[in-house]
Amino acid sequence: MIYLTRRERFSSAHRMFRPGLSDDENMKIYGKCSNPNWHGHNYVLKVTVKGEMDHATGYFMNATRLKEIMKEKVVEKLDHRNMNLETDFMAGRVATTENLAIAIWNELKAPLSAEGATLHCVRVEETENNYVEYYG
Amino acid sequence: MIYLTRRERFSSAHRMFRPGLSDDENMKIYGKCSNPNWHGHNYVLKVTVKGEMDHATGYFMNATRLKEIMKEKVVEKLDHRNMNLETDFMAGRVATTENLAIAIWNELKAPLSAEGATLHCVRVEETENNYVEYYG
Amino acid sequence: MIYLTRRERFSSAHRMFRPGLSDDENMKIYGKCSNPNWHGHNYVLKVTVKGEMDHATGYFMNATRLKEIMKEKVVEKLDHRNMNLETDFMAGRVATTENLAIAIWNELKAPLSAEGATLHCVRVEETENNYVEYYG
Amino acid sequence: MIYLTRRERFSSAHRMFRPGLSDDENMKIYGKCSNPNWHGHNYVLKVTVKGEMDHATGYFMNATRLKEIMKEKVVEKLDHRNMNLETDFMAGRVATTENLAIAIWNELKAPLSAEGATLHCVRVEETENNYVEYYG
Amino acid sequence: MIYLTRRERFSSAHRMFRPGLSDDENMKIYGKCSNPNWHGHNYVLKVTVKGEMDHATGYFMNATRLKEIMKEKVVEKLDHRNMNLETDFMAGRVATTENLAIAIWNELKAPLSAEGATLHCVRVEETENNYVEYYG
Amino acid sequence: MIYLTRRERFSSAHRMFRPGLSDDENMKIYGKCSNPNWHGHNYVLKVTVKGEMDHATGYFMNATRLKEIMKEKVVEKLDHRNMNLETDFMAGRVATTENLAIAIWNELKAPLSAEGATLHCVRVEETENNYVEYYG
Repeated sequence: MIYLTRRERFSSAHRMFRPGLSDDENMKIYGKCSNPNWHGHNYVLKVTVKGEMDHATGYFMNATRLKEIMKEKVVEKLDHRNMNLETDFMAGRVATTENLAIAIWNELKAPLSAEGATLHCVRVEETENNYVEYYG
Repeated sequence: MIYLTRRERFSSAHRMFRPGLSDDENMKIYGKCSNPNWHGHNYVLKVTVKGEMDHATGYFMNATRLKEIMKEKVVEKLDHRNMNLETDFMAGRVATTENLAIAIWNELKAPLSAEGATLHCVRVEETENNYVEYYG
Repeated sequence: MIYLTRRERFSSAHRMFRPGLSDDENMKIYGKCSNPNWHGHNYVLKVTVKGEMDHATGYFMNATRLKEIMKEKVVEKLDHRNMNLETDFMAGRVATTENLAIAIWNELKAPLSAEGATLHCVRVEETENNYVEYYG
Repeated sequence: MIYLTRRERFSSAHRMFRPGLSDDENMKIYGKCSNPNWHGHNYVLKVTVKGEMDHATGYFMNATRLKEIMKEKVVEKLDHRNMNLETDFMAGRVATTENLAIAIWNELKAPLSAEGATLHCVRVEETENNYVEYYG
Repeated sequence: MIYLTRRERFSSAHRMFRPGLSDDENMKIYGKCSNPNWHGHNYVLKVTVKGEMDHATGYFMNATRLKEIMKEKVVEKLDHRNMNLETDFMAGRVATTENLAIAIWNELKAPLSAEGATLHCVRVEETENNYVEYYG
Repeated sequence: MIYLTRRERFSSAHRMFRPGLSDDENMKIYGKCSNPNWHGHNYVLKVTVKGEMDHATGYFMNATRLKEIMKEKVVEKLDHRNMNLETDFMAGRVATTENLAIAIWNELKAPLSAEGATLHCVRVEETENNYVEYYG
């Protein structure tokens, strides 16, 4: 079993808030992250897949194919967008890094499996000081 | 003459557009950066000041004081904010990295001078691949 | 189960030596790291906690609270200090990165548990080329 | 049990191709990575070993010894070399990052074991966007 | 006057040698960098252009256009290639980082000028520890 | 004229204080940086030299020779040492980054000149957020 990780980046606007609560109540839970005028980040996404080596090719999944799937299923829906308003797989979810990692996992699991790779970890870095990992 | 640089970070939402133009015309000039729903970045700000050494203290300006001025005059007005809507010194300017660097220069020049330091360079990094420098 | 990691930094002086041994014997074991006049590092600390998602908030532990606990229990006792002489939780331990990681784990486990988070990993980076991880 | 990681770097030329196939067939599988004139990378190697703490010394394996073994067994055979033509442990293998990680594992397992350390992970980073991990 | 910098990367094989000299003589001058079997690097290229602000657009040159010119004129001729054998603008030059920076300057000066931008600096980073800058 | 930069690192203990002042007075000027028990950093040193290209070799100064001079004249006197107590060229100077940069300039100027290179800039990075540059 071998593990392959690909790094991609996207720049998004977001805001953390729970629809049923007032701006004041959201501010109490999420602080400045609930600013109604939005803020944004350069997110770093690291996706790790695992599989059995194919000794003929020297790998189990082409890294270029991994990149294409990440771009099509995830990055294009988030980059230079507002994830609360425009990203279908974040609809109805609080826009935390935790929920983002889980939602990205759900988008990637099946397409990667169709390529013969098992999704192992989705890591989302919001700043240089904070990141979240999800293993399913 | 010696040069001291301090690095700070802020996470902002923004959108590039010229008020007199339609969304389509803005899209033609700024591409995805003009998305009406906003997007955002983790900006890195590097401010370089210069001065004559004070041989008694071993510096010409206290780095902690430089940090305080950067935070008060610039970072607090941008971090976790929408720079188009909330940052006073960006009002009426297209929210490009170029204009941001110039506006930050204008905010910092006088307060740094009052501390005996000469502002030398404002550098604003929008992503790991793009940055702008302004020397006045 | 989801994993959240927070990065903090501290700058400390230290020296590796075993109290019962001579300077020469310590030099044989620890080399230049046992210099009796001390040396120091910019340490990077990464603390990973895990927990079950709270679907109402979109996380299991507030990252700001994690930061506060790391600062109060660990960083303030190490930053701009001599860890051999001034850091209570390093008293009587050889000041290796390995012992530092274990001691930090012991300081953080209970306070994080009181917040409903399970400590998963303490990672201490001494230089860009060396780091230690402890999982309890 | 505690984990120690050491980072080393090497700059190599390589080419991905399967000897029984034509250049065109290799190009179809490996794309530009099969360029017959070679290309190259600054590889980053991270080796993680684990062991039980020796409370007298404060570690289980000297990081300097780990570095020496990595240099002697791996880095000197790859750095400023063509890994297809000159690296004995890559002979007969397609020069993918995956195969490189596995081959490095095989070179390091016994010498590290002789030092009382258990090899835990070999990580090879080919670019800032791609890396492979092997756990045996 | 404002300065804009764009970062691109390319992975190339190369070898330093002077055609009129023997392998032994080249080895004396260039050491392991003259290995006849080639080696390679992940190069980082930073190109800085300067110009007068256009207050209508908020910049003097579109960063996307800068990226396109760098890719077309430089990166595509170096990435996943052997710069000694395949890069037209390096023909007849010793493949040092110094010569590479000067040659890239010569390739970029006119096309950038045609866009209304003045080339200010070409920076080529060969490893994390060495880089060269050329200002014309 | 071309510019070559080499990066080296050293880990030192230090303390900022003026000998004629009390600990309290030093604390007022330098804050926690004047801790009498010392603290320390992983310093990053970047030395830039300039010269006229030698078209036969493709450079004006061998980067390996630059590295050797930096190690012999500077790094070996600072690395794993207490710069206040053990570094000859810091004797009698307040151990600020500013003074360190100037002292390193003075150590390097003549030896680099003897190699035909002109020292252009000494840059000392104390943390990821602060650095000092000196141009003579």
